[in-house]
Amino acid sequence: MNSFSVTILGSSSALPTSQRFPTSQVIRLNEQLFLIDCGEGTQIQLRKFGFKMGRINHIFISHLHGDHIYGLPGLISSLVLYGKKGELHIHAHSDLQPMMEGIMKFMNDQADLKVKYHPLNFKRNAVIFEDKKIRVTSFPVKHRISCCGFLFQELPSYLHINKEALEKYDVPVSQRLNIKNGADLILEDGSVIPNNLLTLPASPPRSYAFCTDTVFKKGIVPTIEGVDLLYHEATFAADLSDLAKKTYHSTSVQAAEIANLAKVKKLIIGHFSSRYKDASGLVEEARTIFPETYAANDGDSFEL
Amino acid sequence: MNSFSVTILGSSSALPTSQRFPTSQVIRLNEQLFLIDCGEGTQIQLRKFGFKMGRINHIFISHLHGDHIYGLPGLISSLVLYGKKGELHIHAHSDLQPMMEGIMKFMNDQADLKVKYHPLNFKRNAVIFEDKKIRVTSFPVKHRISCCGFLFQELPSYLHINKEALEKYDVPVSQRLNIKNGADLILEDGSVIPNNLLTLPASPPRSYAFCTDTVFKKGIVPTIEGVDLLYHEATFAADLSDLAKKTYHSTSVQAAEIANLAKVKKLIIGHFSSRYKDASGLVEEARTIFPETYAANDGDSFEL
Repeated sequence: MNSFSVTILGSSSALPTSQRFPTSQVIRLNEQLFLIDCGEGTQIQLRKFGFKMGRINHIFISHLHGDHIYGLPGLISSLVLYGKKGELHIHAHSDLQPMMEGIMKFMNDQADLKVKYHPLNFKRNAVIFEDKKIRVTSFPVKHRISCCGFLFQELPSYLHINKEALEKYDVPVSQRLNIKNGADLILEDGSVIPNNLLTLPASPPRSYAFCTDTVFKKGIVPTIEGVDLLYHEATFAADLSDLAKKTYHSTSVQAAEIANLAKVKKLIIGHFSSRYKDASGLVEEARTIFPETYAANDGDSFEL
Repeated sequence: MNSFSVTILGSSSALPTSQRFPTSQVIRLNEQLFLIDCGEGTQIQLRKFGFKMGRINHIFISHLHGDHIYGLPGLISSLVLYGKKGELHIHAHSDLQPMMEGIMKFMNDQADLKVKYHPLNFKRNAVIFEDKKIRVTSFPVKHRISCCGFLFQELPSYLHINKEALEKYDVPVSQRLNIKNGADLILEDGSVIPNNLLTLPASPPRSYAFCTDTVFKKGIVPTIEGVDLLYHEATFAADLSDLAKKTYHSTSVQAAEIANLAKVKKLIIGHFSSRYKDASGLVEEARTIFPETYAANDGDSFEL
């Protein structure tokens, strides 16, 4: 089975602390790395937690508040200095490109790296990336400025070969890929062995949803329903629900309610206000609603 | 005597390493903090090394390459979130203001903090800040883009009162400040006690010069002559002097030559290329020319 994991690079809200950098996460699918958001110091965290930043080809930016983007100029500059070639795709609000080109005005432009910006759709869900293994869908959430969440869905993988059947019917190597793709086996005498006698079910595709920054919004539930892992921001504890509403953020309990409604398997909460020295209180609150809740801490990895 | 120190927040060149953040330094004069350059992660380093960032009112930016400015948006945002009031003065190339306003477009603008940009003069030396204790002068260096060094000169302080003379002449409290400022004492009978009988010399004013990024440039020597402490970039070892020249940087030996010519008391070298795992080779080379050479390492403090 492919390795599929989420690592927290930053878990603070706007004001970083000595323990928490601003928002950034790295999704690893085998050797591919995808970056979500890029707060200040993201390149430092990638280095610290042992990720090869040159393997990042796609960056997904939820919205343009500074704690989600101020690490981008430095990360792109370092990728250029490391000699990364080809294309770097940044999926973000269309305002990001002029902002980045402005601040990077004096960067050496002898780069082999071409940065391509792809505008997000903040009105409806949209598939923004797909290859053979994974599909990424953006979906609108509700914040002070245009903001999207991201859904990472592993695509159905090959069926598993049933080794005993393989031996019994003496399946030639040339046929194996077809069978893993669902084909029946046709023997030399013309008889047909149906695929279900030759294979075992494929591993179920896994999925991860990232929801930040957003006020409590039930409308996202159908999109994220049943994901294996949900990250939902929880800037405040439940007693500050008025402040959460006013600032278009969520509380720990609201994050848990979303996880509950969407019947996800596991919930990570993060984007904690710097007023909380320790996230354990927020996790405890959330667990009263959704027991499988965990705190995002910088460096934590969650395997799907 | 006032406390006057330089702390290295970042000592890498363009590509940060696991040990070195990009360029930034903090100058402490008693309770005042001045920041020089602001590479990505400067706010993290300020927090790590125990500086109260709210005490920074003046930031001096040598030039607009990313490794000297990418920490500014995050630092300013955090100052706003901490509720800093009044004015923050940024002395930099006039292009910085639109760059910052662009990238900080979506910052909450209910701030009590007013950021004031002051354009630097890249043609000649200029006094850019002065109060009762310190004068800051910018001076052009030679890099790929417009770049300035900064000279921090403590202003002459009060004469020290000679306590024995104070008792002998029974100097009234009301006269003491005048005497510390150099006045003679006039006794009730009209006789004059000359100041030199009442005082001891003031502490000699101290000075610090910051030179980065620059190709070897003898022209700066008269400006920095005799400073107590000189920081001079040394991106490369002496064997890469051709590369240094081509990229408008200096070698360790060139930094030492400048220190020697300027008869400074002590030299710090920094802005090391990431190819050097350890700066000791560069320091050794520099010491063959200027023995009082030390490496800049993140967190090092130099008391003047």
